[in-house]
Amino acid sequence: MSLARVHNFAISLDGFGTGEGVSRDAFFGHAGERLHEWMAATRSWEPGGSGGVDDVFVRQYGPGIGAEIMGSGKFGYPGWHEDPEWQGPWGENPPFHTPVFVLTHHVRPSIEMEGGTTFHFIDASPAEALEAAREAAGGLDVRIGGGATMLREFLAAGLIDYMHLAVVPIVLGRGVRLWDGLEGLERQFQVEATSSPSGVTHVTFTRAPA
Amino acid sequence: MSLARVHNFAISLDGFGTGEGVSRDAFFGHAGERLHEWMAATRSWEPGGSGGVDDVFVRQYGPGIGAEIMGSGKFGYPGWHEDPEWQGPWGENPPFHTPVFVLTHHVRPSIEMEGGTTFHFIDASPAEALEAAREAAGGLDVRIGGGATMLREFLAAGLIDYMHLAVVPIVLGRGVRLWDGLEGLERQFQVEATSSPSGVTHVTFTRAPA
Repeated sequence: MSLARVHNFAISLDGFGTGEGVSRDAFFGHAGERLHEWMAATRSWEPGGSGGVDDVFVRQYGPGIGAEIMGSGKFGYPGWHEDPEWQGPWGENPPFHTPVFVLTHHVRPSIEMEGGTTFHFIDASPAEALEAAREAAGGLDVRIGGGATMLREFLAAGLIDYMHLAVVPIVLGRGVRLWDGLEGLERQFQVEATSSPSGVTHVTFTRAPA
Repeated sequence: MSLARVHNFAISLDGFGTGEGVSRDAFFGHAGERLHEWMAATRSWEPGGSGGVDDVFVRQYGPGIGAEIMGSGKFGYPGWHEDPEWQGPWGENPPFHTPVFVLTHHVRPSIEMEGGTTFHFIDASPAEALEAAREAAGGLDVRIGGGATMLREFLAAGLIDYMHLAVVPIVLGRGVRLWDGLEGLERQFQVEATSSPSGVTHVTFTRAPA
């Protein structure tokens, strides 16, 4: 069975997945890099980095994944669709190495990048997008890439099978909240928490057997 | 030095310290007992209960404390001040065993209970209340008892020296938020997280030396 999985999605203690004031120069707004420093400190990202629980969570990102779905806000700054040259913020060899479905009302032709990543632009509901991504994944799992707005929609639609959140010990105060409208979410999942010496707490939601 | 300490303050994953719809029959609103089940499962509360990290955090509640300050909403249901017989929800021997200062715009004479608890009713700012409680504590620490609204005010005023939160793995969706207006709170503290096999994560804020 092809699962819909979320990995390394970082939120602040107060539940924001992105700060306020997102722009081309500030992809996470006033949050800056603070939601992702824990990841950059692992040896998956940086030789000589930590090899503990943060790193082993980071390493779950790739294996078994055959496609990703991401929201419009992850592919670029607000207004990227007005730039016909925009290919995302990851350079020529993005870290996905699979088909990636970008949810947008401004569809454009697919872009084939180096390293196996192809961006497809679709205007679709969460369920439709998941169906398209599953087909492209060829039996493998689909990563639900965020940001917070699209992740919340996939959760509300009951489409997520596994979710790994990293709760970072900062209070952002403003931005895009993950939790809004998800009252009682825990009833669908087995929820576990694992704190790390880095200060981050990994919270995993594993769908309970039907 | 007399510290202002918070212990065992439970919030949901989405940051609510109390649910919606608080009444005489539902002190935590639609949250019910779900924010505090982890505490009731410890051997501090129940013979034969767990003796692990949840329990050792619970046991920090009493030692070294000489007085408590609580908000109006912790002393009783909305409207308790219209009931002259109301003595709080804890019975004749409340679990405080010290002077307790209740912040309210509806002051009334102090009430001496069994077991060393005396309730004093004061209409005061957080700083004024802390000064009064410190005097009553005779050199010991002051516990800041909550609820979420008063705790947020004490945090915003920079009056908390130590705070222990228990993050419970439920999504309440509505109620009273702890985190509003506290952007950047972590800069004043050393923040540590400790997850428990119960699913709760203990997050401690220890004021950084000046």
